[in-house]
Amino acid sequence: MTELKNDTFLRALQRQPVEYTPVWMMRQAGRYLPEYRATRGKAGDFMSLCMNPELACEVTLQPLERYPLDAAILFSDILTIPDAMGLGLYFETGEGPRFKKTVRTQADVDALPVVDGEKHLTYVCDAVRTIRRELNGRIPLIGFSGSPWTLATYMVEGGGSKDHARSKALAYDQPELMHGLLDKLARSVTAYLNDQIRAGAQAVQIFDTWGGALSHNGYQEFSLRYMKQIVDGLIKESEGRPVPVILFTKNGGQWLEKMADTGATALGLDWTTDIGAARKRVGDRVALQGNMDPSMLKTSPKRIREEVAAILESYGSGEGHIFNLGHGITPEVDPENAGAFINAVKELSAKYHR
Amino acid sequence: MTELKNDTFLRALQRQPVEYTPVWMMRQAGRYLPEYRATRGKAGDFMSLCMNPELACEVTLQPLERYPLDAAILFSDILTIPDAMGLGLYFETGEGPRFKKTVRTQADVDALPVVDGEKHLTYVCDAVRTIRRELNGRIPLIGFSGSPWTLATYMVEGGGSKDHARSKALAYDQPELMHGLLDKLARSVTAYLNDQIRAGAQAVQIFDTWGGALSHNGYQEFSLRYMKQIVDGLIKESEGRPVPVILFTKNGGQWLEKMADTGATALGLDWTTDIGAARKRVGDRVALQGNMDPSMLKTSPKRIREEVAAILESYGSGEGHIFNLGHGITPEVDPENAGAFINAVKELSAKYHR
Repeated sequence: MTELKNDTFLRALQRQPVEYTPVWMMRQAGRYLPEYRATRGKAGDFMSLCMNPELACEVTLQPLERYPLDAAILFSDILTIPDAMGLGLYFETGEGPRFKKTVRTQADVDALPVVDGEKHLTYVCDAVRTIRRELNGRIPLIGFSGSPWTLATYMVEGGGSKDHARSKALAYDQPELMHGLLDKLARSVTAYLNDQIRAGAQAVQIFDTWGGALSHNGYQEFSLRYMKQIVDGLIKESEGRPVPVILFTKNGGQWLEKMADTGATALGLDWTTDIGAARKRVGDRVALQGNMDPSMLKTSPKRIREEVAAILESYGSGEGHIFNLGHGITPEVDPENAGAFINAVKELSAKYHR
Repeated sequence: MTELKNDTFLRALQRQPVEYTPVWMMRQAGRYLPEYRATRGKAGDFMSLCMNPELACEVTLQPLERYPLDAAILFSDILTIPDAMGLGLYFETGEGPRFKKTVRTQADVDALPVVDGEKHLTYVCDAVRTIRRELNGRIPLIGFSGSPWTLATYMVEGGGSKDHARSKALAYDQPELMHGLLDKLARSVTAYLNDQIRAGAQAVQIFDTWGGALSHNGYQEFSLRYMKQIVDGLIKESEGRPVPVILFTKNGGQWLEKMADTGATALGLDWTTDIGAARKRVGDRVALQGNMDPSMLKTSPKRIREEVAAILESYGSGEGHIFNLGHGITPEVDPENAGAFINAVKELSAKYHR
């Protein structure tokens, strides 16, 4: 493999010295970029874009041409695993993702296969290889998956839902059925992420978008436990470097100590958590990634810069911070404001690393 | 006024001794009850029901006929204030609330009147008086309002929204405009709640449904500050008793200490917070209300009973707990399960109050 020219992101994840706070954005290859919309138009629908390694590579690299980002993230969808399990993912225009089949009974769970990357999601592993080749050592590549609980909610509901009431009621009422589903998902996610790592992913992130909808105890039983199972099962080293794992539970700010107990390398924070307070709680055990409110990108370069300064100041001096948004960048954002965000992090963070 | 026969709820709010943990449910007068659906059918649409004091009283009392609840809550909507300000509230079938006018410029803010209860929302004060008369001292009546920030999000967005991006961007980018709006709302809410108290409300709750969408600092600046302004301006005593104030910020579990600093009597908790841990943090300063996941009501009486037991055990012995759900009861719940919930609280809580 080509030598990595900028490993700031990987060093920060290990809480090693860096020259500035590295930065990337969740959903940085996305609809806010006109060049993304053009490629997506070429591909046809969203899943055709995900399933075409050359085009997935193209959109992965697009934000890097505009901004001095410190990491690339594989362009894909969190729902590739349930789709590979046979549920039939599709996207309604103007709606979120939907599944043709749902999973609500023990028989439904029993019928599901455990999937992996190379065999069942070849197009994802091919995309990872293509992106690594095209990155040519410029910055590291992040692989990712949805968390078992997050995937399970979509599989039970048949798509997105406002309050995940059906999935939660199923978990609370028939925990054995839900544990059977979550175990199959955790084994699939582990195999899938390991195949992404073998194909060239240099760090992985687990997106637990809906863990924060569970009760305090439910989160530990139905979401965190399976993320720990994944962390335990992941390849620890690749290309002579440790492979960091980032856990991101949206609305998980109350549970950081328990999340750090999983052995993850870093925790993603949404914007409701004060990053300085989070560092006091778990900063001796994990790196922290985040956490500007994506809505801030709808203001002005000046206001964005003030907010970046406030978050850097809250984290304070020393290592272990990867700057990011607290959730994905949204379609209406002006790309110039995204650039102002990235540049502000670069310019204002150096003084915290002397 | 008639003497209050059951003041368990009011005593628990003051952290005084009680015989069992009092219980009520947010949105207890609601669509899960067939008798509610019948009355609503009679009224026509939702706002006609809110605006008819006799029918609002009828639905307020319905759950009390089924369950041994320890408090009644005024049947109304949180959006009565923006409607009284002239924005034109209406409900689209199958959609949430909408406004005919939005508030997005300084001129929009300047044009808004400050409203109160008796003059501008007479139908609400009349409903309070009617309900008090019909309750005849059986249990206390709770009045309520939306928080200024929560009302502002609907006014800026023109209705409900997924991520409140427009309201947050406006707050972050033009804080003076937003503070002008929030101050008018806080003054209106204060006057409105005080008129509800004068009309007979024996406790009040401020519903901050969307404060938890703000950033850590944004919450304090745009939501909590105005709830404190309201708490400071409320009538402290009525009918020879203190009037307790309950603050409920959904997704506010990280901010309980700051919420307690407002001087509120009690804090409402959603289900993501461990109530025992919350008690350790702020239980010497406030009572705590909550916090079963409403999705639990879609399981079974047995499972509901287990969850009630776990929450009671987490809070532990002694005073200051009012049992509730962590958010409103949803339309699909079987009324029998709601009854199982109420009964479980009554039966299982006595041992914590010996």
